[in-house]
Amino acid sequence: MTEQFDAVDVIRTKRDGGELTDAQIDWVIDAYVRSVVAEEQMAALAMAILLRGMTRREIARWTAAMIASGERMDFSALRHPTSDKHSTGGVGDKITLPLAPLVAVFDVAVPQLSGRGLGHTGGTLDKLESIPGWRAALSNAEMLAQLDDVGAVICQAGSGLAPADRRLYALRDVTGTVEAIPLIASSIMSKKIAEGTASLVLDVKVGSGAFMKDLDAARELARTMVDLGTDAGVDTRALLTDMSTPLGLTAGNALEVRESVEVLAGGGPADVVDLTLALAREMLDAAGRPDADPAAALADGRAMDVWRRMIAAQGGDPDAELPTARESELLLAPADGVLVRLDALAVGVAAWRLGAGRARREDEVQAGAGVELHAKPGALVRAGEPLLTLHTDTPERFARAREALADAFTIAPEGSRPDLPDSVVLDRVVAS
Amino acid sequence: MTEQFDAVDVIRTKRDGGELTDAQIDWVIDAYVRSVVAEEQMAALAMAILLRGMTRREIARWTAAMIASGERMDFSALRHPTSDKHSTGGVGDKITLPLAPLVAVFDVAVPQLSGRGLGHTGGTLDKLESIPGWRAALSNAEMLAQLDDVGAVICQAGSGLAPADRRLYALRDVTGTVEAIPLIASSIMSKKIAEGTASLVLDVKVGSGAFMKDLDAARELARTMVDLGTDAGVDTRALLTDMSTPLGLTAGNALEVRESVEVLAGGGPADVVDLTLALAREMLDAAGRPDADPAAALADGRAMDVWRRMIAAQGGDPDAELPTARESELLLAPADGVLVRLDALAVGVAAWRLGAGRARREDEVQAGAGVELHAKPGALVRAGEPLLTLHTDTPERFARAREALADAFTIAPEGSRPDLPDSVVLDRVVAS
Repeated sequence: MTEQFDAVDVIRTKRDGGELTDAQIDWVIDAYVRSVVAEEQMAALAMAILLRGMTRREIARWTAAMIASGERMDFSALRHPTSDKHSTGGVGDKITLPLAPLVAVFDVAVPQLSGRGLGHTGGTLDKLESIPGWRAALSNAEMLAQLDDVGAVICQAGSGLAPADRRLYALRDVTGTVEAIPLIASSIMSKKIAEGTASLVLDVKVGSGAFMKDLDAARELARTMVDLGTDAGVDTRALLTDMSTPLGLTAGNALEVRESVEVLAGGGPADVVDLTLALAREMLDAAGRPDADPAAALADGRAMDVWRRMIAAQGGDPDAELPTARESELLLAPADGVLVRLDALAVGVAAWRLGAGRARREDEVQAGAGVELHAKPGALVRAGEPLLTLHTDTPERFARAREALADAFTIAPEGSRPDLPDSVVLDRVVAS
Repeated sequence: MTEQFDAVDVIRTKRDGGELTDAQIDWVIDAYVRSVVAEEQMAALAMAILLRGMTRREIARWTAAMIASGERMDFSALRHPTSDKHSTGGVGDKITLPLAPLVAVFDVAVPQLSGRGLGHTGGTLDKLESIPGWRAALSNAEMLAQLDDVGAVICQAGSGLAPADRRLYALRDVTGTVEAIPLIASSIMSKKIAEGTASLVLDVKVGSGAFMKDLDAARELARTMVDLGTDAGVDTRALLTDMSTPLGLTAGNALEVRESVEVLAGGGPADVVDLTLALAREMLDAAGRPDADPAAALADGRAMDVWRRMIAAQGGDPDAELPTARESELLLAPADGVLVRLDALAVGVAAWRLGAGRARREDEVQAGAGVELHAKPGALVRAGEPLLTLHTDTPERFARAREALADAFTIAPEGSRPDLPDSVVLDRVVAS
């Protein structure tokens, strides 16, 4: 077969700051899937894209080409409108767990196709798998049936959605090209658009524990994704949210399920509740339910009811005791004062090293491992009182987790203010 | 074995505009040779180097690491000082053929380790192989013996010199990263330094038929290479020379040998003679022979004597008839006037398509194929008179060669000046 383009010409165009044509983009993604464009050629192109950028048109076409590499789902036969949420990943980010059932209370179908954790950010599926019996893999038919019946499903994304992205992501991971905003945006949005949701709310994290360390980069990513979704006919909005300190009081799989259940029971840490409600309101508004009152549905148990049905529908026992780690150690406050900083990245790395996350895709995670916080930034602490509890099944991991925490926090004299924004929600980006 | 660095960290450092440490550079080249750094990782790094650049220190270390990947040669036992020439490649660039024996006349040992052509620029070995019996592959011992005995040798570079470069060059060729000046410079200079020459004159071509299309880029490449050689203890200088039109009147293997022999016989086209003498004077000066008169050695047959001994020493018959192509066609001048432009790239591509060059490394070349010029820019031409003769063994190639020549020349009204510099030598770059 004669190829329409030459990979080196396409790479050179982007390398020299030019714009790729629609035909070049369609060809390069398709040829990559066919292995006509080699891994090293795509790596060079990805680096050129990272350093040269892409126009809105190029990103939209790149995303469309990734979608065209696989199958598309169709939720149009469902009784209720669909709304989905995607987080760019953070430490202690268990929001999907209370959010999906909460939104489903209001006759919105919530299809959460999720992933596993890699590195210091946790994965939603890893968390739910700490519930005895629960299974992540559903067929498309099972998923649709559960969406129609329960209203919410959190399950593993099928391998048929945007297969070009899976391959490209693995390549970017080893070639220092993960951080390209056009590629991050098209990776996320190709799967969400192929999934077929009618509306989408993006939680774009900002801060040490997030992929985007500063607000400007996060805003650019949010804007790029909102534009992409809008151009593809998906009602898309984004919240920029703080990830300089962990969300809630836990980072780790079963630990986070327990905290999510507290939120569903009407309690839980204020930041987790606030962010859950903020995202729920966006999803409900996008799904045509602007008057819904999600706070009431947390308070009166309706969200908990959907949670229990959702877990049970996937084989999980919502009443089962959650696993706990075999060993734990305390980390004590070294001084009296105000905890003004507790770093998200450090806590995330510690939880990961304790066994809550994996270094390679094939690793197993420990259900009970992780970090429990006894104080949030702003709290008064006393020397010798517990600041954190570290949990693991494998105590030889404590030392490296403590190393990660060596510079994780700052205690300042009484009266000091924490180094944190007033609200976990920093900004909102909508279709322009 | 635990690796000292992580490839992604090294890529990220360069991607973000940072400077690589000596230890990072040593590691990345060595790990690439060991296949610990994968092809796609090196491709991403090469693109980052192309777009971010390298400091003089980084380039010197990168070059040293490439040299360290292989063996080094040693010419110190020779009776005479060594001097070498390297051209960045052009169309009709047969200068090595008369130059090596000419310089050897003055008791300078000239070790020309050469390559084959790829794409539109010819290869010195391909040209010499059109001489019946001549062989390119010599052992190190044969090469040293010939240098001591004849004074000049043109042979194939052994695969032991800078093997990392051979691998990296093949990768750059398919990933749009050939044009990175730090990588071009280190590729050339690693082999020249490893070869062990005491002095080196670089012929850096500028213009349509060259790698470097403009003088600024060529000057930067020349400066980078002169600095690299100087830092490594090699007396290194560069001439920037014009490659907007072919050198001499021929492009093609046997055609260029014939023209070189004319130069050695005291004749030949003025531009070939001028450039041969300019480069010879630089090499002779660098080798401690500032008073040598190379023009006299062309005129009185001494250079021809060395040529004949050099060819014979490698099995060639200097008196043998050179091959000619089976078929030829004329390209006629379409109008009366002054030939003001004859494009080097177009002629190079035409010669290549006629069979003088190869598209892939494993292709064979035709000894007789190529393009003969009947006029140089500045000449008066008459409509219907031959401008070029095209030669090939395979007449189905004529059509594509003519396509390459469609916009190759401009004929302007009588009295017009050619679009050419006054001298083939445009500038000179020496150690700073």
